[in-house]
Amino acid sequence: MTQRGQGMAADIAEQPAGYARLLEGAPAAAITAAAAAVAERRPRHVMFVGRGTSDHAALYAAYLTEIRLGIPAGLASPSAITLYGARPDLSDALVIGVSQSGGSPDLTGVLSVARESGALTLAVTNNPGSPLAEAAELSVDVAAGHERAVAATKTYTAELMALLLLIEGIRAGDGVLPADERAAIEKLPQLAEEVLADGGAEELARRYRFASRMVTTGRGYAYPTARETALKLMETSYLPALAFSGADLLHGPLAMTDPDVPVLAVVGSGPGGQAMTEVVNRLGERRAEVVTVGAADVPGAAGRLAVPSVDERYAPLLDILPLQKLALALALARGEDPDAPRGLKKVTTTL
Amino acid sequence: MTQRGQGMAADIAEQPAGYARLLEGAPAAAITAAAAAVAERRPRHVMFVGRGTSDHAALYAAYLTEIRLGIPAGLASPSAITLYGARPDLSDALVIGVSQSGGSPDLTGVLSVARESGALTLAVTNNPGSPLAEAAELSVDVAAGHERAVAATKTYTAELMALLLLIEGIRAGDGVLPADERAAIEKLPQLAEEVLADGGAEELARRYRFASRMVTTGRGYAYPTARETALKLMETSYLPALAFSGADLLHGPLAMTDPDVPVLAVVGSGPGGQAMTEVVNRLGERRAEVVTVGAADVPGAAGRLAVPSVDERYAPLLDILPLQKLALALALARGEDPDAPRGLKKVTTTL
Repeated sequence: MTQRGQGMAADIAEQPAGYARLLEGAPAAAITAAAAAVAERRPRHVMFVGRGTSDHAALYAAYLTEIRLGIPAGLASPSAITLYGARPDLSDALVIGVSQSGGSPDLTGVLSVARESGALTLAVTNNPGSPLAEAAELSVDVAAGHERAVAATKTYTAELMALLLLIEGIRAGDGVLPADERAAIEKLPQLAEEVLADGGAEELARRYRFASRMVTTGRGYAYPTARETALKLMETSYLPALAFSGADLLHGPLAMTDPDVPVLAVVGSGPGGQAMTEVVNRLGERRAEVVTVGAADVPGAAGRLAVPSVDERYAPLLDILPLQKLALALALARGEDPDAPRGLKKVTTTL
Repeated sequence: MTQRGQGMAADIAEQPAGYARLLEGAPAAAITAAAAAVAERRPRHVMFVGRGTSDHAALYAAYLTEIRLGIPAGLASPSAITLYGARPDLSDALVIGVSQSGGSPDLTGVLSVARESGALTLAVTNNPGSPLAEAAELSVDVAAGHERAVAATKTYTAELMALLLLIEGIRAGDGVLPADERAAIEKLPQLAEEVLADGGAEELARRYRFASRMVTTGRGYAYPTARETALKLMETSYLPALAFSGADLLHGPLAMTDPDVPVLAVVGSGPGGQAMTEVVNRLGERRAEVVTVGAADVPGAAGRLAVPSVDERYAPLLDILPLQKLALALALARGEDPDAPRGLKKVTTTL
């Protein structure tokens, strides 16, 4: 009999190796080839589809696509196509389906329809033999290996890494990263090891053992991290966690925060982090307990999960790591089994 | 001294008249002209930007655009452009900014950048003299009049109606709705009156006076209603409310539901509603208390806010009405002032 949470802990620990794996050999070559094929086709816009954790990876990739490639990108709602029979003309589009299992019928349906309508289609999945990969013209294997826990951790960050390499490869034109870009990305496995070695998350879990709910927030590249953190807390600790973009939080939902609701604010060292400063200040005025996560040290925060400073476009691959550890430690502290949460299935079968 | 909640109650009551107003005279003529101008330009894809309540109206419009026009549509993150300086090539795109005040600098920034890059730009706002309307090439006035309460109600539904008329007008080609379409939409003011006359929402508010949180859910056209309901509950009652697409709820977050957490499920009489049946059944297995909202009568639900059966694409204009009343009644029952919630500003000033 294994110990509770051992699977999730092992998955989390494997992430630095997962990053390194995508930088060499067959996985790297496949991403390079896919990037070159996309660059040659010059899509006019990019549509991402994903659900749950993979939707957050897709959101990250949408920011990258707009900022790094100058190509408009958006997240699609599968149900327009799968429930209502929409047949949008996607002949100028690149449609990217993101799914760890590759087994979700609605995403496969969207990619099939998109391919029929002339779109270039690409699957990003941890299962290269899956229906999603079969349905798409191009396929990228995130090569994260078998995930032990039901809650996704290493498949999420492998999706982030694969999408980062893909999009920077498209930017390069031939799929081959420029030397400075490659050098910056090659540092991520080691940086990820350092982040995982820190014990701050476990300490924080003791503090929030009896929290009844949490708020997570971030802007720009950090917003997917806020959303993924909230989902992870809900999946493993059944803790209601509301994720807001920092901009949206300043409207209505700020009113809901009070000293009883811990706020996890992802604050990097670039434009997104700077924009979060006002959010953290406003939260402070409401006497909310704010813990910042990331490279920026914000005065007035009650605590911090520090992460080394990197360009904000790489930060999502580091910032999520202590937050996954927090979700794991909090679940264990609350007597839950994060490896097999109630009500959670690995493969989505919604149409 | 006015009574608490009187402003919000008056705003809610005005919605049927607001629907009728957009069907005649100058507001209708302006929508027809904008629709014809869009149809002539034949955009290859549509990007929506909005925040908070207006983001939910934009989400509704994105479904309409894909399903009714066969044009790919997505929601953009303003921060890619406004924080990170992304300059996506939008020369094939229609970019629609949705904002009741038209005063949000980030949306105005996105529309300005989009227009410079060759996009057709359109503002949908309750303030035709606003910076957003000035920045856009085309502008539609939702003509809802002054909103008394800080929480948006009648401006939300006026945005829905304006976007519905706009998109059906684009579908027609010349902006003029076909007779059957117009006849169906013309019934909405009267149906809205009937929905508002029902007292079910006030009764439900008594039942949920002491609920500590809520979940809202819907699929397809009903998903924006679920999101807007959650925001309204948070803004006026400070009640943590988590909104999920029915498909996403079946994954992890389902585990969080239990008999103590009321679930408001928006279930219409079309494909979205049918897909929700499994969701309601699964919630029942978890002994969640499910109240359905909409045209479908689902066996096993603990309660229902019934709404007349219309095509699902019109349902968002009716389904939200009892839910706004629920938010108002719940705020009053909890001793809050829904007209002036703490921490809520009418105009967003985030960059």
